Amino acid sequence: MKKVGVAILGLGVVGGGAYKILTEQRDFYRTTQGVDIEVVSVLERDPERIRSLGVRSETVASNVFEVVSNPDVNIVVECIGGVTEAKGYVLDALNAGKTVVTSNKELVCKCSHELERAAKRTNAGIYFEASCVGGVPIIRTLLDGVQSNRISSIQGIINGTTNYILTRMGDGMSYEDALDEARKLGYAEADPSADVEGFDAAYKLSILSSLAFHTKVPFSKVFREGISGISKEDVEYGSRLGYTLKLLAIGKDTDRGIEARVHPAFVKNSHPLASVNGGLNAVCLTGNAVGDLMLSGKGAGALPTGSAIVSDVIFAATHEGNRYSAFKNTAKADSDVKFVTDYESAYYLRLTLADRAGALSKLTALLAKNNISIVDLVQRPDGADSATVVLVTHTTHEMSVKSAVARINTAGIAKVGSVIRVLS
Amino acid sequence: MKKVGVAILGLGVVGGGAYKILTEQRDFYRTTQGVDIEVVSVLERDPERIRSLGVRSETVASNVFEVVSNPDVNIVVECIGGVTEAKGYVLDALNAGKTVVTSNKELVCKCSHELERAAKRTNAGIYFEASCVGGVPIIRTLLDGVQSNRISSIQGIINGTTNYILTRMGDGMSYEDALDEARKLGYAEADPSADVEGFDAAYKLSILSSLAFHTKVPFSKVFREGISGISKEDVEYGSRLGYTLKLLAIGKDTDRGIEARVHPAFVKNSHPLASVNGGLNAVCLTGNAVGDLMLSGKGAGALPTGSAIVSDVIFAATHEGNRYSAFKNTAKADSDVKFVTDYESAYYLRLTLADRAGALSKLTALLAKNNISIVDLVQRPDGADSATVVLVTHTTHEMSVKSAVARINTAGIAKVGSVIRVLS
Repeated sequence: MKKVGVAILGLGVVGGGAYKILTEQRDFYRTTQGVDIEVVSVLERDPERIRSLGVRSETVASNVFEVVSNPDVNIVVECIGGVTEAKGYVLDALNAGKTVVTSNKELVCKCSHELERAAKRTNAGIYFEASCVGGVPIIRTLLDGVQSNRISSIQGIINGTTNYILTRMGDGMSYEDALDEARKLGYAEADPSADVEGFDAAYKLSILSSLAFHTKVPFSKVFREGISGISKEDVEYGSRLGYTLKLLAIGKDTDRGIEARVHPAFVKNSHPLASVNGGLNAVCLTGNAVGDLMLSGKGAGALPTGSAIVSDVIFAATHEGNRYSAFKNTAKADSDVKFVTDYESAYYLRLTLADRAGALSKLTALLAKNNISIVDLVQRPDGADSATVVLVTHTTHEMSVKSAVARINTAGIAKVGSVIRVLS
Repeated sequence: MKKVGVAILGLGVVGGGAYKILTEQRDFYRTTQGVDIEVVSVLERDPERIRSLGVRSETVASNVFEVVSNPDVNIVVECIGGVTEAKGYVLDALNAGKTVVTSNKELVCKCSHELERAAKRTNAGIYFEASCVGGVPIIRTLLDGVQSNRISSIQGIINGTTNYILTRMGDGMSYEDALDEARKLGYAEADPSADVEGFDAAYKLSILSSLAFHTKVPFSKVFREGISGISKEDVEYGSRLGYTLKLLAIGKDTDRGIEARVHPAFVKNSHPLASVNGGLNAVCLTGNAVGDLMLSGKGAGALPTGSAIVSDVIFAATHEGNRYSAFKNTAKADSDVKFVTDYESAYYLRLTLADRAGALSKLTALLAKNNISIVDLVQRPDGADSATVVLVTHTTHEMSVKSAVARINTAGIAKVGSVIRVLS
């Protein structure tokens, strides 16, 4: 039976999960996959992690050189995260001809060209299913399940922390309370900005849309807006109009160019994404032949993400040829690619209006002048002399809405309290 | 650039779809997959099909021998369907060392051992994503996306015709009217029995559970009950209790053995499968690491199924090694495998009860004696001297329900009008 040696760099939540799965299921993989996969080396400084996982001391390497020069290591699993240290380690492994499996979305997003070049040079493999949407095999699907399609759109809920917070806000909690609860449950980190400001989702969207559209979609081209500015009030108003608020990642390949954006958006309750709650993630894609396809499952956690890592390890261990092809020509002439910034969307606006005759008429006239037509409008008195108006527009251009909002504020017609995109 | 020649056997709906995609997207695949895939041979007797697809006459083979002896053919796509003719053709292709891609669920279900042996002998590949759930890449997912998991359950809606009919019955139509409409829309065939009696779903479940549980689950071990006996009345009663009726395919790997069954079942409206309507299909699976994962998309049609075929063709054209491994050791000692027939489920019963004191008490006493406890019960007068009772049980054993029902009828306590399983 073919033997494959694995090294794991970093035994945190994800690396520890992968270690557990690989060691516990070794016999299962011998039987079902016909390959004997053994963890022969780990790199981890924390003795407590090593102890609690029961790693044998002779398996623990003292530095990365020891790992990549070990002839028994065929596959290096990188679960350190970030770019600083991990990038050098991954390049060392690829340069030594070791296949790399990584869960590191920031590294894959920011350095894919460099990693691909190194992998090509030594004919090593590079796999990164675990970098996106936890256990949901969206990368395998894009590469080997729907690769016969021209994909025009990929959109989804790809960050569990923000989805948990928004789900709780939908239950009536404030942003601060929901974030606190998410922290206590381990969904959010002490510094939650990578999640709540949309960085995590933007890294993933960069990777997924690069694969879907066969051209590099750099992080710098991904529009990003987080959820920290969302008020409970807007979640409630949206809910009354039949919408659920989600942090969406949207990638589109249009006639005008590619658009990639991460931002909060209201989703109609009848849309399948509206019922993807809590820590669940989901991705919808549209292909010219397959039509609409949706995948949903756990977007994070030791075992779901470990599932993705180990599935990549098995794939690498059981498939030969084209080993570095995971990036499938995303490295082609990036400079030729056009990116759309004035994208189309529907919008939710909340405004405070002077409660006097003609105020609403001025507002609607100004919107009409900017080619913005209204689907839904609710007005209710606020207090003595003002009213809150909540409205949802038909699909229009981002720039039209921005200029209309500026005009509404400066002309003193109303005070725009919030502008939130609506999935159309 | 690597050149790959494809032959297509049968240019019906699915074969025609595959032909269209392969010819229209040839340049796209050259760019994105680095391989030049050309349809070099087709086998089709109907000149109208050949004409309408614009197949060049020199591509049309006059018999299968011409196809499999053609040195330019690397991959044979079989879209004839059925076992009679297709089996011989597929074996001819495999014996000639050609990789086979097939959409033929009956053939794969009934003859996988033979096909696998032939493929192994010549190191040809055998791929059959298109045999199950149209464009949804469930087989790629099982083989290469969650193969790190021990899968304990796979269940879903995997037949579009019956799902369309049941969706329309949910709108208030009778079975006959819904079937008529499905026929007119091309969802159902003139003889609909393969779909409505559950054969189609049973072939697919046999294939999917064989892959999920790493052992052959033969067609003969799949319990099968169709939807032709379903009354509008039961769909309505279920709806009032908060359930939607679906034809479910359920495979489980339990401590007691493997169970595989296709039958109508009520699904709670809050369950994700309840909102999979019309021609849509969906599969949920549960793995020890990934947890619950759901895939949904179009389950049939020329282009979705063509998407699956062409994705398999590209996979075969771009991956070397382990080529016949699609069956991944489903051929191991079948005789050792235990199959469960007395499976556990919840049940919906509709009964006609004599409308007199003590009748309901006798009924509930008998159920209790058979260890069947009740979740929900509704009684309403039927006419002069009888009442309809509809009840839903807790999870219990199939055999307990069968013996209770027999006892209820023979003892004259009530007349059992219908017994429908409930997804628990």
